[in-house]
Amino acid sequence: PGNIILKNLKNHFRVYPVNPKRDEIEGLKCYKNLYEIREAIDWAIISLPAEKSVNAIKECVEKGIKLAIIVAGGFGEAGRKELESKIKESVNGSCKIIGPNTLGLLMPSKNLNTIFIPNVKYKKGDIAFVGQSGSLGVILMEELAREGLGISFFLGLGNRLDMNENEILDFLEKDENTKIIALYLESFFNAREFFEKCKKISSKKPVILLKAGKNSDGREAIKSHTGRISKISPNLLRCIMKQNGVIEARDLEEIIDFSKALHKYKEGGRRIAIITSAGGMGVISADYISDFDELELAKFDEETIKKLSKLLPPFASCKNPVDLTADATNEMYGKVLEIVSECKNVDMVLCLLQFHPPKINEELIDIMKEKVKKVNKPVFFCISGVSNEIMEEAKKELLIYPNIRRAMRAMNCLAYRKKWLEKDGKARMEKMDGDILTLLKENGIKIPEQSIVEDEIDDISLNYPLVCKIYSNKIYHKTDVGGVILNIKNRRELEEAIEKLRKKFNEKIIVQEMINGVEFIVGITAHEELGKIILFGLGGTMAELHKKHSFRMIPITREDAEEMVNELEINSLFNGYRGMKIDKQKLIDAIFRIAKISYCKNSSFEINPLIVNEEGAFAVDIKFV
Amino acid sequence: PGNIILKNLKNHFRVYPVNPKRDEIEGLKCYKNLYEIREAIDWAIISLPAEKSVNAIKECVEKGIKLAIIVAGGFGEAGRKELESKIKESVNGSCKIIGPNTLGLLMPSKNLNTIFIPNVKYKKGDIAFVGQSGSLGVILMEELAREGLGISFFLGLGNRLDMNENEILDFLEKDENTKIIALYLESFFNAREFFEKCKKISSKKPVILLKAGKNSDGREAIKSHTGRISKISPNLLRCIMKQNGVIEARDLEEIIDFSKALHKYKEGGRRIAIITSAGGMGVISADYISDFDELELAKFDEETIKKLSKLLPPFASCKNPVDLTADATNEMYGKVLEIVSECKNVDMVLCLLQFHPPKINEELIDIMKEKVKKVNKPVFFCISGVSNEIMEEAKKELLIYPNIRRAMRAMNCLAYRKKWLEKDGKARMEKMDGDILTLLKENGIKIPEQSIVEDEIDDISLNYPLVCKIYSNKIYHKTDVGGVILNIKNRRELEEAIEKLRKKFNEKIIVQEMINGVEFIVGITAHEELGKIILFGLGGTMAELHKKHSFRMIPITREDAEEMVNELEINSLFNGYRGMKIDKQKLIDAIFRIAKISYCKNSSFEINPLIVNEEGAFAVDIKFV
Repeated sequence: PGNIILKNLKNHFRVYPVNPKRDEIEGLKCYKNLYEIREAIDWAIISLPAEKSVNAIKECVEKGIKLAIIVAGGFGEAGRKELESKIKESVNGSCKIIGPNTLGLLMPSKNLNTIFIPNVKYKKGDIAFVGQSGSLGVILMEELAREGLGISFFLGLGNRLDMNENEILDFLEKDENTKIIALYLESFFNAREFFEKCKKISSKKPVILLKAGKNSDGREAIKSHTGRISKISPNLLRCIMKQNGVIEARDLEEIIDFSKALHKYKEGGRRIAIITSAGGMGVISADYISDFDELELAKFDEETIKKLSKLLPPFASCKNPVDLTADATNEMYGKVLEIVSECKNVDMVLCLLQFHPPKINEELIDIMKEKVKKVNKPVFFCISGVSNEIMEEAKKELLIYPNIRRAMRAMNCLAYRKKWLEKDGKARMEKMDGDILTLLKENGIKIPEQSIVEDEIDDISLNYPLVCKIYSNKIYHKTDVGGVILNIKNRRELEEAIEKLRKKFNEKIIVQEMINGVEFIVGITAHEELGKIILFGLGGTMAELHKKHSFRMIPITREDAEEMVNELEINSLFNGYRGMKIDKQKLIDAIFRIAKISYCKNSSFEINPLIVNEEGAFAVDIKFV
Repeated sequence: PGNIILKNLKNHFRVYPVNPKRDEIEGLKCYKNLYEIREAIDWAIISLPAEKSVNAIKECVEKGIKLAIIVAGGFGEAGRKELESKIKESVNGSCKIIGPNTLGLLMPSKNLNTIFIPNVKYKKGDIAFVGQSGSLGVILMEELAREGLGISFFLGLGNRLDMNENEILDFLEKDENTKIIALYLESFFNAREFFEKCKKISSKKPVILLKAGKNSDGREAIKSHTGRISKISPNLLRCIMKQNGVIEARDLEEIIDFSKALHKYKEGGRRIAIITSAGGMGVISADYISDFDELELAKFDEETIKKLSKLLPPFASCKNPVDLTADATNEMYGKVLEIVSECKNVDMVLCLLQFHPPKINEELIDIMKEKVKKVNKPVFFCISGVSNEIMEEAKKELLIYPNIRRAMRAMNCLAYRKKWLEKDGKARMEKMDGDILTLLKENGIKIPEQSIVEDEIDDISLNYPLVCKIYSNKIYHKTDVGGVILNIKNRRELEEAIEKLRKKFNEKIIVQEMINGVEFIVGITAHEELGKIILFGLGGTMAELHKKHSFRMIPITREDAEEMVNELEINSLFNGYRGMKIDKQKLIDAIFRIAKISYCKNSSFEINPLIVNEEGAFAVDIKFV
């Protein structure tokens, strides 16, 4: 590795090779040790086995070097954490360490390349990659280059002993060469900080994250790779990424497809027009749209349809998707793109260019290049029936994807980005005084009238029907063990219920006015990696099957609360559920205000159930953690 | 179009051009009309505008021609159904019609090519395509050829006036040139027959179906394309495809990826081993596996791990995924493939070959080719870091996919196929005598004791607690309108309940012993396209949110019933639900037997709810349709 790195650097930097056994390497004078070098040294690249690297670092510190890259593996990832501790000890903050076990650093604008793989293929460009797998980054760089996209920055984090993704994000935020940031992470150095930084950066540059270790197999594989596992579940992670504007990528293909679109267009609206000459492809496209949350099929206005029907043959389709049929001509394709992109209901266009109809030929590519320049909306292409040469030529100017699914997925990414950029995002949190219960009430969360049962029950002044339940922190599913008696209609039933619970449990008993409605759970907990988070889900018996939960980091905005409700996919409840109409806005308000209270009071608690009905939201049971 | 078709055919067939205005076309004598031709004619290809095609068909019938292809569009799909009726009238069964509005027919083994697109690129091979979009089929043929795969048969169904996919399936079942059948359909000529045929054929040849028109946008697009829409919902369709062994493809990419795998290997088991030199790629692969129903990550046995650890460098991973690290060599890759594929817990292998490690070079491809020949398990490859030339060379022998997701999806297809081939599939149905209620009881479905309330309620000899409900065919959600009173504990409450219902409804009242348990719905209905089908889903309040239903065509096997239960994703109910244990096997039996009874009696009815608890399944409410 050392030789490869030296070759990469020697023509662009003043490099001092150090090796006690050699007098000269690659035509450069070789030094026995660092002390022999008279000049001050900025960076050190240590390409030695693990143990020797530890000693070399000591020399670096003594020499006053401020940054060192340790290439070797065989540290923590191979069960030798003690070597890493030794490095930390001798450095003691005086020298920044990249690695160990890192593939290195690449900054094309500075001709800086410490990657020890010979002949890595990459282009200079505006995409930054930071990751816990350098090899994966190398594959990514190559594939990006194939798509004509280049790299502004590349760093393999290796064992992340010191230099971590959060520091790099600070750098990349300001780096003018970088327009898009892509990360591969198996764990987070500091997750809270990471997402806070992402939120800030995302308003300027898109941040794409490929987070590995989603399921137990993946996490098991990480144990033998970087050995660092995050405890953030896939669902929690997805919610937090969405909250902070991070674009989720599932694999390299997605990073590449998204980067390609983001490189050409910053954002795009959700209403898609489709143009094809093969009816079947139009139908498949229309089918696919509903797979993508941020997209919908545009509805053409009358004027657009009129213009199209003037232009197209009689059995073509002038609705969206537009089907030119096998009678398509080059000019027709061009004009249709023009007409469709002028339609005010269209935000982005997907052109499926088939070169099979008899009147279509290569000129179509040139026509499309011209039209795309004039159209001020994102235009995506899928092209079939042309030679590789024509395809390569077309790729230089047109945004081409190999198939409909991938094109739409990239369009979805642009629409996600637009939505994010339009968000306010600022969580404004005023100060609030008072205890939690008072604050809940002041913020419109109702607390059912209740009473703790002492010896006598004479003085209960609640309205029937009532609920009688044990008051216990030990028993979680009170209902399952018979610790809740519902629908108590009169004094006689109340006495029976209390009697029954007293016989069965040695716990305090609470009597509460009964609330009918849909049961939810809202919980605020301190997450090990993310800090305070809020959870929202269905409660009661429905929770057994509908296990979906939504999460956000606190503080949240009202938009976040709205998204949380949407993520549960419970719209059937708002459209009339068992004769009851639940007010969605009241539910959103309740979540937002509960989060606000918890943030201001810095308190963790769980409301389960939060019952919502036509009158509002009732915190029926509150547990403080 | 006529000229292109003539050129395609003239060197291989005795072709008689017919055109009143010409004496010679393409060096062949041209006839004024069909009658001028003395010889008997087998097939006619009519390349005339719509109206003229109608007249030409009449001539064909008179001439005694048995098969005619009508190329022109402008019939039913353009709102001119009357032209199609005229053709039907004049043909009256004496001549088979392909089209109209068809791209044509291609059978490379017979040099038969009536496709009117110039220079269609395709290879001769063993894949048959039949579809309602010829243009889509042309794109498919080209892309298959790029992957080295060829076509045995191609037919654009066009408007499917006469010749339909079911007839073609009969032909393809026996066609020795065809090993894989791929279809693109927007609707079914006869869905029941189609799936019955697929079931039969699937035991010999894989059938891949791309069914378009999944959602409202897609169906809307079909209206302007073939104009024929199926009423089978996407969920219902998915169930029926699974029941009959059909492989679902969502787009051309899937058809190609599946065909590629099925062409090389017939089937494969579910346990996957992964080999890589980039740890991150291993982690992503492990993550992906859980996306695929039919796959799981293989657990290596001790012996395999021991063999691997002897071979690999100290910080490599000898577990699955195997990570060779950047120290990988060609020989190491080869040996690991050998060791891993000898492991008895491994069914298929995914090799991620990265050419970046310094000791890896092009020889690796040859080593892998050799090894794959010896290994008797399917081996899939993803390759990065090689030139296009080496990749093309490698593709000739190795099964290579562009990325992990696509490779795994194809592996999933092989595993799906294996599972299907191992199924018994025969639904054995004995004769049964008696009325439905008796048969249900005889088959272990319990009916709660009940009594219809006449004037007096003295003679009710049921065990409390009881349920009191209105007996009505008009009101579907009895609970919602207050038509059901649960948990009646004694005579006094019963009288109150009856009184209450009588005041509110003018309906008969039924009293039933109350059954606690989980509520399901099992319905048997006659579907317009599929005939008798059985539906299974959750009932009661949980159904509001868990709307998932499973379907099968009747008759079903017990395996089908088991799959139906699995498809509902309600395993939490079987692992103890609110203090109750529901017996999964009893539920499966109940569904299977209900289907059996309905089949034997040819009867449609709905059991809602079917309540299941520890004691078994209770048909609480049965409606006959």
